[in-house]
Amino acid sequence: MASLVSGLLSLHAKRQDGGLDYNSAPPNLSILANNSIFETWRPKAHVLPPSEHIGDPCMHYTDPKTGTFHVGYLYSSDNSSGAAAGITNDLVTYRDVNPDVPLFIEPGGKNDPLAVFDGSVIPDGINGSATLLYTSVSYLPIHWTIPYTKGAETASLAVTSDGGRNFTKVNQGPVIPGAPQGSNQLNVTAFRDPFVFQNQYFDEVLGSNNGTWYNVISGGVHDSRCSQFLYRQVDPEFRDWEYLGEWWTEPSNTTWGDGTWAGRWGFNFEVANVFTLSETGYGNEGKSSDFFTTIGTEGGDFPVPLQKSPDHDMLWINGNVSLSENGTIQFEPTMAGVLDWGSEAYAAAGKLVPASSQASKKSGTTVDRYLSYVWLTNDNYGQSNFPKAQQGWDGSLLTARELSKGTIPNVVDNSLVHEKASWLVTGHDNSTGTVELTTLRQCIVRELYSAITDDAQETYHQPARNLSSNADLDIAPKSKFYVMKASIDFPKSARGNDSDVKAGFRILESEQESTSIYYQFNNESMIIDRANSSAAAALTPGIFTTVEAGKLRLFDIREPSGSSKVETLELTIIVDNAVVEVWANDRFVMSTWVWSWYSASNKLGFIVEGSEEISFGNVTVYEGLVDAWPERSD
Amino acid sequence: MASLVSGLLSLHAKRQDGGLDYNSAPPNLSILANNSIFETWRPKAHVLPPSEHIGDPCMHYTDPKTGTFHVGYLYSSDNSSGAAAGITNDLVTYRDVNPDVPLFIEPGGKNDPLAVFDGSVIPDGINGSATLLYTSVSYLPIHWTIPYTKGAETASLAVTSDGGRNFTKVNQGPVIPGAPQGSNQLNVTAFRDPFVFQNQYFDEVLGSNNGTWYNVISGGVHDSRCSQFLYRQVDPEFRDWEYLGEWWTEPSNTTWGDGTWAGRWGFNFEVANVFTLSETGYGNEGKSSDFFTTIGTEGGDFPVPLQKSPDHDMLWINGNVSLSENGTIQFEPTMAGVLDWGSEAYAAAGKLVPASSQASKKSGTTVDRYLSYVWLTNDNYGQSNFPKAQQGWDGSLLTARELSKGTIPNVVDNSLVHEKASWLVTGHDNSTGTVELTTLRQCIVRELYSAITDDAQETYHQPARNLSSNADLDIAPKSKFYVMKASIDFPKSARGNDSDVKAGFRILESEQESTSIYYQFNNESMIIDRANSSAAAALTPGIFTTVEAGKLRLFDIREPSGSSKVETLELTIIVDNAVVEVWANDRFVMSTWVWSWYSASNKLGFIVEGSEEISFGNVTVYEGLVDAWPERSD
Repeated sequence: MASLVSGLLSLHAKRQDGGLDYNSAPPNLSILANNSIFETWRPKAHVLPPSEHIGDPCMHYTDPKTGTFHVGYLYSSDNSSGAAAGITNDLVTYRDVNPDVPLFIEPGGKNDPLAVFDGSVIPDGINGSATLLYTSVSYLPIHWTIPYTKGAETASLAVTSDGGRNFTKVNQGPVIPGAPQGSNQLNVTAFRDPFVFQNQYFDEVLGSNNGTWYNVISGGVHDSRCSQFLYRQVDPEFRDWEYLGEWWTEPSNTTWGDGTWAGRWGFNFEVANVFTLSETGYGNEGKSSDFFTTIGTEGGDFPVPLQKSPDHDMLWINGNVSLSENGTIQFEPTMAGVLDWGSEAYAAAGKLVPASSQASKKSGTTVDRYLSYVWLTNDNYGQSNFPKAQQGWDGSLLTARELSKGTIPNVVDNSLVHEKASWLVTGHDNSTGTVELTTLRQCIVRELYSAITDDAQETYHQPARNLSSNADLDIAPKSKFYVMKASIDFPKSARGNDSDVKAGFRILESEQESTSIYYQFNNESMIIDRANSSAAAALTPGIFTTVEAGKLRLFDIREPSGSSKVETLELTIIVDNAVVEVWANDRFVMSTWVWSWYSASNKLGFIVEGSEEISFGNVTVYEGLVDAWPERSD
Repeated sequence: MASLVSGLLSLHAKRQDGGLDYNSAPPNLSILANNSIFETWRPKAHVLPPSEHIGDPCMHYTDPKTGTFHVGYLYSSDNSSGAAAGITNDLVTYRDVNPDVPLFIEPGGKNDPLAVFDGSVIPDGINGSATLLYTSVSYLPIHWTIPYTKGAETASLAVTSDGGRNFTKVNQGPVIPGAPQGSNQLNVTAFRDPFVFQNQYFDEVLGSNNGTWYNVISGGVHDSRCSQFLYRQVDPEFRDWEYLGEWWTEPSNTTWGDGTWAGRWGFNFEVANVFTLSETGYGNEGKSSDFFTTIGTEGGDFPVPLQKSPDHDMLWINGNVSLSENGTIQFEPTMAGVLDWGSEAYAAAGKLVPASSQASKKSGTTVDRYLSYVWLTNDNYGQSNFPKAQQGWDGSLLTARELSKGTIPNVVDNSLVHEKASWLVTGHDNSTGTVELTTLRQCIVRELYSAITDDAQETYHQPARNLSSNADLDIAPKSKFYVMKASIDFPKSARGNDSDVKAGFRILESEQESTSIYYQFNNESMIIDRANSSAAAALTPGIFTTVEAGKLRLFDIREPSGSSKVETLELTIIVDNAVVEVWANDRFVMSTWVWSWYSASNKLGFIVEGSEEISFGNVTVYEGLVDAWPERSD
């Protein structure tokens, strides 16, 4: 890997923050020397490479021999590209699978002369070795806005024999040599990101051998639909895959319901994952209604600039799986939502983490889990002029999230409940006039949550209080590395289209800067207002100060007394330097970058607007987080 | 094409025959300087490149804009490889499509990093330009005796915009990205040589648009069968092809009947052509029973050396086409024969030559024809040590043959007729006790035949005579470039298993050398006995002196008088220096190399052995042939 030499050289030039004054207004950062602001906004507890660009997460797996979990991602620098990985035994700390430049596969073979795109791993694959099924790219450009070059994306195999440090390409052509073709020519918008999975329900319905592998490939058909192309393993070497059809499609440029709760299907699907969930984690029983998929959708209203993607949505869908009349297996959505509402959060890649994994055994987790990593682009998917060279890196993965089937009990059976939305009514209690709702549950991976709360360097408590207007908090972390937990109760009178109620917190605040995170009742939205979030935005391009917004419905909850109240807003806000993640009620996440400049911008405040008094529960701030990469030299 | 520079340099070093004495015994030729024997055995009237190696003929077409016919072939030298072509307006003389090194496509693209194998041309293809569908090779080795590397052979497109001098690869992946796969994994033996054709009968039966293109790809399935994989055009750009199934298969290592008349199906099919024939030429009406295919079969009894092919048969098959119960189109052979019985003759590639072609218009040919070129390997398919470097070239195409449906009338309806063979009984006349047989008719392409007979430099006539033993002919050509026509009548008593009758001719004869061509009645075989054919064989390896043999049945023919006679053996022997072709009765061809050394080896003789008197008709020798490549500088 000769290309790594220059990569190493550039590494030694990093982290020269000296000379910048974080107590006065920043200059135009885009004219500074490379790596000048390497540490300025770099997160600490997140997964990202030692330097350079991180792309889509993908290719995760638990090594069945060691129980080690590998978190893969696309990587590129001026000198190299491909897929890289970190490995972890505790889901808290990671080490690079290769030091300096953690690539384990690079493009340039016969199948992938131009690029390696997303793939996924069969942990116990060819000859028992971890086997990667990845997108091998031969022709560019590829984009849903332009005609597709036949054969541009194929699916090829690579196998590791050294514990994942290198994946060696199998010396044969692609195992899936492009989009299906036949009498109905498929003029695809994309054909990539093969995602492998096993499923007992599939085996039964399709009459497959137990433990057969399947995969879905993401894409769509021009002027027609977004699609998941389904395949089944044919042979033990994964050399051939049987095409089982488009098991799920949605018409181009349509939405789930009116689009309120799950954005747009767009014009093309990417990065589809398929998995089953139970209430405790991975749904090993594999019932028809347990099927979930996460997808990235590419879209936007026409006309859009060619080869640019102004809009990406990162969605999850739950549905029923059944055999159609003609014997093909089909997926029919029953609810759909947004996995992360941040406009820069995309390309989720998850994987079954078995109870036998090292991390699970250490944390006493006895259930199989489904863990998903979401990407946070640094530069609006390459469209902005963020000073990447000056930073020396860009992008990050977000905090890993455990997905499961979640229920909301004791929900008053009123009009708030009945909607084509991101929840389902799965139980009725006529005696109390309540229903039970089911939705996707998203929680911070338990090991990390324990680590950053139980083992916090410092913990601050702010007692509960009621407020009618903005106020300062009595507590403030000393740094920009913390997690904050809080709950907010709204009066029933806050509900309504003409409500003027907003409540939340100001974070990363100083005299010069402040970021507002609040719930706005009249449109049931969680907002991250970055308008005044960064002094750097004044002179430096690519420092976004736009508003991030996501939809969260707070239902009416029947109390034991028989009366009802507005569901409490339970907030967990992770601030890892410039990465800010807002988690709410185990079913809402919105993540973004907040590029605060001033050292003093670490204060907190209450936000209360409108005519109502708002009840804030205890606020706890756990400061310090963890260094996810203890073996990296700074 | 930088690689051509060194090709040009080597060309200037050619044709240094000086110093060799063709009146005394030759030395070991394999230790001479390169190109020392360039002219020694080089044919004059045949299609072959200016120098270096010729492989399979393929990629022929008539340019619809000019009416020029392009004869393509695989080409390789130390410096370059790919496909090359000669073009002709009269089917007599050719010029190289590019001077010196007539390549029009070379490997090295994304689809064909290793090699370009056989393909075929849609004359009026993408945007009306000649469009090549060819075998793009990514992985080697490929051989039916070893496991197949998935994706090793795919089918890709290239288009010419300069009249065929260059074919530019379409910038996309293969249009057929490898062998079909699915629930029944096809572990193919090969998947190559796409042969395109249009067919009205197909259009009707399959409900295709008029003028739809189809193609067959040749191969087989390990431990199962030899196959032709059938595809149908999907779109006007030929980007996608619909797989219509294996329209014809034969079990591995089986034969047509007992193998007497059509050799072995072997273990793998190559170079399949599919076309329809009428009694005048190309069968434009496309009846079900008009379908013919030519195939190369690879085989031999196990165990065979891995990656070596001891045996190749070049076969033709006529059959019926019909829809199977499940709606797939199927080919069912009704007769099968050998296209050329020479053991080194293989890889026939034919093409429709429309009446609108320049050559047809010049020769007044008003019917569409099907013209096939057969390859004659110089070195047993690369297995021998023929002194190729000393010769500076190797291999040739054989004289182009016009194929049509031929009939043999007035055949006595006896046991000779009723056999699973290379003919069909297609008519009965009970009053005379005769049948009409139908078989494949093969004739020397008419324009060339006219040129080498009508315009011969010298013509020799030997009157008819009856002979009971060997005799000299009164005539002898001055050179080794001629065509000889003769007929031989055998008495009815010559027939029988215990017959000792042999009759024919000695050619290329001198005191030191002689080649015997004769018909041997007891096993109905045409023989070319090369045992004493070449003085060079004594010291030089790779100069074969083995016997060539082919099967030809002479039927009993009812004469107007009511009596019957043995069908006359009508011989046409082309001697083009070392290329010797034996044509018989418009239905038999056997071609080979005869490497006579001595200048004096140009004499002729009668062969008569056995207890019967044989009647020889007039013998005519047309000397001179034609220079097929008048524009090449010698």
